Amino acid sequence: MSLDDAVSKPHDRLAKALAEDLTAVNHLIRQRMASEHAPRIPEVTAHLVEAGGKRLRPMLTLATARMCGYTGPYHIHLAATVEFIHTATLLHDDVVDDSAQRRGRPTANLLWDNQSSVLVGDYLFSRSFQLMVETGSLRVLDILANASATIAEGEVLQLTAAQDITTSEEIYFKVIRGKTAALFAAACEVGAVIAGKEDQTVRALAAYGDALGISFQIVDDLLDYTGSTATGKNIGDDFRERKLTLPVIKAIAAADDTERAFWHKCIAKGQQEAGDLPHAIALMTRHGTLEATRAQALYWAEQAKSALRDLPDHPLKPVLTDLSDYVVARLN
Amino acid sequence: MSLDDAVSKPHDRLAKALAEDLTAVNHLIRQRMASEHAPRIPEVTAHLVEAGGKRLRPMLTLATARMCGYTGPYHIHLAATVEFIHTATLLHDDVVDDSAQRRGRPTANLLWDNQSSVLVGDYLFSRSFQLMVETGSLRVLDILANASATIAEGEVLQLTAAQDITTSEEIYFKVIRGKTAALFAAACEVGAVIAGKEDQTVRALAAYGDALGISFQIVDDLLDYTGSTATGKNIGDDFRERKLTLPVIKAIAAADDTERAFWHKCIAKGQQEAGDLPHAIALMTRHGTLEATRAQALYWAEQAKSALRDLPDHPLKPVLTDLSDYVVARLN
Repeated sequence: MSLDDAVSKPHDRLAKALAEDLTAVNHLIRQRMASEHAPRIPEVTAHLVEAGGKRLRPMLTLATARMCGYTGPYHIHLAATVEFIHTATLLHDDVVDDSAQRRGRPTANLLWDNQSSVLVGDYLFSRSFQLMVETGSLRVLDILANASATIAEGEVLQLTAAQDITTSEEIYFKVIRGKTAALFAAACEVGAVIAGKEDQTVRALAAYGDALGISFQIVDDLLDYTGSTATGKNIGDDFRERKLTLPVIKAIAAADDTERAFWHKCIAKGQQEAGDLPHAIALMTRHGTLEATRAQALYWAEQAKSALRDLPDHPLKPVLTDLSDYVVARLN
Repeated sequence: MSLDDAVSKPHDRLAKALAEDLTAVNHLIRQRMASEHAPRIPEVTAHLVEAGGKRLRPMLTLATARMCGYTGPYHIHLAATVEFIHTATLLHDDVVDDSAQRRGRPTANLLWDNQSSVLVGDYLFSRSFQLMVETGSLRVLDILANASATIAEGEVLQLTAAQDITTSEEIYFKVIRGKTAALFAAACEVGAVIAGKEDQTVRALAAYGDALGISFQIVDDLLDYTGSTATGKNIGDDFRERKLTLPVIKAIAAADDTERAFWHKCIAKGQQEAGDLPHAIALMTRHGTLEATRAQALYWAEQAKSALRDLPDHPLKPVLTDLSDYVVARLN
C-alpha cells in the first residue's frame, strides 16, 4: 500500500482525520510562506512547495501525533515546521549542488538566482522556527534545534567528503544520518512529544524515523544510478557531482587497479567523458554493488518496522509500516 | 568614548563585569562553533569570528541585561546567539553579494567556496537556535524567531530592490530595519526580557536598539562612498553591486534628466566604466546628499539616546549612550 493510498482511502475515522490534518498543514504552509514586503518569497516557495512533493515528513509528524492520541492543534504547526525546514534545505542544496532540476522541474536557483534561493531558504528556516515556538513546548524546540544542527553538519560533511574516493561507508552513514535521517527522526519524535508520551514511545518513534530516513536516502542514492521518475532527477547527477554515495563507495572498495584509476579520474579528478557513466554502472553491476545497496535499503526499512514492534496496537500503526514499504517500493 | 574604551577602562565594578562577560561570550562562541564530524565548520567560522569584529551586538545584550539587574548565566548564551545569527547572515550576504573582502580580509566564499559559506551559515544559525533554547525562555525564543524572519525578509527585499532606481527611501528603511536594526533591537530586547523587566523597559530598550541599528546601517552605507578603514570594504562596493542605498536614492531624487540617465546606465543597466564612481560621488556632493545622509545617521543616533531617557539612572546607561556616539564616530 502506498502513501497516496493511505491518505486517499480513509478506511477508518483516524485515516480520515489524518487526511484533514494534511489539508490543514497545506493551508498553514501557504499562509506562512506569504510576505507582505517581499513577493519574491512566496513566488520561490510556491514553486517548490506546490511542486507535488509527497509531504512525507509532515505526514510522519501527523501520524505519530495521532497515533499517540494527541487531540490538540499543534501537530499541524509541527508538520508545517518540518516541511519548511525540508524546503529550506532543498533550496540551499540546489545552490550547493548547482542543480538544474528537482522533482522533474527547473530548480529555483535556475528560475530566479542563487541569491534568492539562499535568502528565501533562510526565510523559511526562520518561519519554521516561529511555528515551533508557537507550540510553547521547550522539549519540541530542543529536538528541532538539535535536528537542525545535525542536518547542517551532515551537509558540510557531505561537501568535504565529495570527490574523496577514500570516503568510507561509515562516513556515508554519518552524512545521511545528518542530511536526511535527522529530520525524519525529529518529525516522528515531536509527534510523540507533543502528545505527552513517555520516553519509551518517544525513543521507539525516533528510532523508526531514523531507520526510515536512512532507508529513504539509500534508495534515493541508488535511484540516481538505476533511474526512476520518482525523484525527478536525471540519472547520474550524483556521478557528475562526484558524490561518494553507497553504490560508488562499494564499487571503489571492490575495484582492481584499473577500475580504481577509473574512479580516481571520474570522481577525484572530475575528468568525465561520454561513456564514463555507463561504464561506472557496468562496474557496479559487475561487482553487485547496486544489489548490495538495495539490500541495505531493505534492511533499514525492516529496521524501521522493528522499531514499531513493541508499541501498542493502534489503527494508525499500519500507516507507519506502509510508509516504510512505500519508501523502498520506489525501487520497483 | 569608544566601545573599546568602554570595555577596556573598567571604571566601575559593572563595566568590569561586562568585560568579563564578553570574555565568557568569546569562550562560548569558540566552544559551540566546534564540530566533531566536519572540521570545515570551525575553519570557516574562526576566519570570520576571530577577524576582529567589535562584538557590538553581543555587547548590547550583555549591557542591557546587566543594566536590568540580571544576575543569571543566560545573557552569555543570548549574546553568543546574537553573534552567531550575525555571523550566519554575513556568510550568506557575502555569497549573495559575491564579495571578496570583509573587514579588510578575503571573504570565506573566496577562501573556501560559496557552498561552504551557505552550509556553515546554516550550521551557525542552528547553533544559535540551540543556544537560545538553553535559556528556557519562550519569550526570548519568540523575539529571536521574529527577528530572524524579519532579517531574512529584509535581505530578500534588498535583493529585489537592487538595480531598481525607483526604490524609495521608504523601501530603503524597510530593508535596513530588516537586515540590520531587527537584530540590534532583538539583542537589546532579550537582555531586558531575560532579566524579567516590565514591558515599558523592554520596549524602551528595543526602541534604542532599533534606532541604533538604523543609524549604524546608514553610516555603513555612507562610508561606502566616503571611505573608511572601519568597514574593511572597498569604496564603491555598493555602487558596483548596484545597491540602492540612501545616498544614491537621494541623488536620484535630486537628479536632472542627464543625471538620471547616468544613474540608469550605472545602476539599472549595470554599465559602469572608469570614472563613473568618482562622477557618482561628485553628483552626491553637488546635491548635498552625502551631507543629508550624514544628518539622518546623526538623527537616528539621537533617537537611540532619546529612547533611553525615561529609563532609571544606572552606571551602565552611559555605555549605551556611548555606543550610539561610537556608531556615528565612524564617520570622522
